[in-house]
Amino acid sequence: MYTTHSLQFTSATASDGVLERDFTLGDVPGVLWSPEAARAAGPLLLMGHGGGLHARHPGLVGRARAAVSRHGFTVAAIDAPGHGDRARSAEDQAWIDAMLRARDAGEPIAGIVSEFNASLAEGAVPEWRATIDALQALPELDSDTRIGFQGMTLASEIGIRLAAADSRVSAGIFGGVFASEALLAAAATITVPVEILLPWDDPELDRESGLALFDAFASKDKTLHAFPGSHFRVPETQIDTGFFARHLLNLTA
Amino acid sequence: MYTTHSLQFTSATASDGVLERDFTLGDVPGVLWSPEAARAAGPLLLMGHGGGLHARHPGLVGRARAAVSRHGFTVAAIDAPGHGDRARSAEDQAWIDAMLRARDAGEPIAGIVSEFNASLAEGAVPEWRATIDALQALPELDSDTRIGFQGMTLASEIGIRLAAADSRVSAGIFGGVFASEALLAAAATITVPVEILLPWDDPELDRESGLALFDAFASKDKTLHAFPGSHFRVPETQIDTGFFARHLLNLTA
Repeated sequence: MYTTHSLQFTSATASDGVLERDFTLGDVPGVLWSPEAARAAGPLLLMGHGGGLHARHPGLVGRARAAVSRHGFTVAAIDAPGHGDRARSAEDQAWIDAMLRARDAGEPIAGIVSEFNASLAEGAVPEWRATIDALQALPELDSDTRIGFQGMTLASEIGIRLAAADSRVSAGIFGGVFASEALLAAAATITVPVEILLPWDDPELDRESGLALFDAFASKDKTLHAFPGSHFRVPETQIDTGFFARHLLNLTA
Repeated sequence: MYTTHSLQFTSATASDGVLERDFTLGDVPGVLWSPEAARAAGPLLLMGHGGGLHARHPGLVGRARAAVSRHGFTVAAIDAPGHGDRARSAEDQAWIDAMLRARDAGEPIAGIVSEFNASLAEGAVPEWRATIDALQALPELDSDTRIGFQGMTLASEIGIRLAAADSRVSAGIFGGVFASEALLAAAATITVPVEILLPWDDPELDRESGLALFDAFASKDKTLHAFPGSHFRVPETQIDTGFFARHLLNLTA
């Protein structure tokens, strides 16, 4: 489906050395950040947004621009199905209503969120794969560009399944996601370097789930990174900015 | 006791911009690494060695020299009681024999190691405090120099108790140590930033112990850092070299 679309840029602005371009791929909107000065862009970092957010969420934009400035990466983000500018289906609305009802009733929501995220990931994984295809077809990116994925909560549900499905993803930072059996099974097939973020006092995600997820990855190079607080606000210092530099810039033949 | 001694330098060499001096403080031998060029040395980083090792263990020396070169730190290491050049007491030998017997018999050794480490820490904590006193009395170090402590296994048993006893320690990296009730109680009094290293597949240290230790610290700024493998070989990339730079160099009034 999506592979028949090519990427259409709809706007371009530049500031502080970072070129920022909106694009569409079929009906999927996205944003691409890249070094303004560079001819050949560096590795490609895919950034997913959390549940209920979108590709232009300020936290994501800040991390994207920093990755371009610090490491010369090209960074891409797309809206997940039913998120940002994309229409929300009646089915999605029903999931959200169920989640809000459970939250209001003081019931655990991890199970509902996990199923909802899984249903969104079914659409999002092929969309990300098509986005990779389209980005690699750009003159500025090589087809052998190394690719990383970073994102928590919904973005981790999507990113872990994407990394399991597509060997072009060669490093990932994930976390804040319920370890369903399906997600554990996906993690168990992943051997590329990963870093797992675990908010230690999250009101909605139990520690055991994060520990089980970390344990499941088949990666020899993996790190669990736990810190006080919730997934709502991850301190910048808790995200290892060197992770992708080590794994995506260190080209070995 | 030790505070009546002053620090005696016994040798000095310099290479790659790092001045390396052996010293004694009473009968405790140690090593001090500092920037060769600097008049006023930066923050002070105390590095402890693991059980059975000593202050000149190659891994420790490499980390010490890197901390001087990268951040301009002054780094000090001392031999723990019964380690390195220091005579081993009959009591220490009995602990070691008991540990080796248990290991040979395939029995868990964490309990014995923990009790042995606690007995060594009883001597080591006042020795470290006297070392801080003596270092702060050097013309090159200010009395308000910020101080960090880094060390695993035996060094963590010592460092956590030192940080609990001496408010001059203002940041620490610890790990690979059994979470006895006494150590958990010490950790619960510590509020300075800490990073806890947790070898995920250690044959001699269970994960739960590391998780309980991390949980126990009262620090608002704390990170658990888990990685595959054992405490015998911690990958360099798993040690956050930015941790002490963030917490010791960022001087706030």
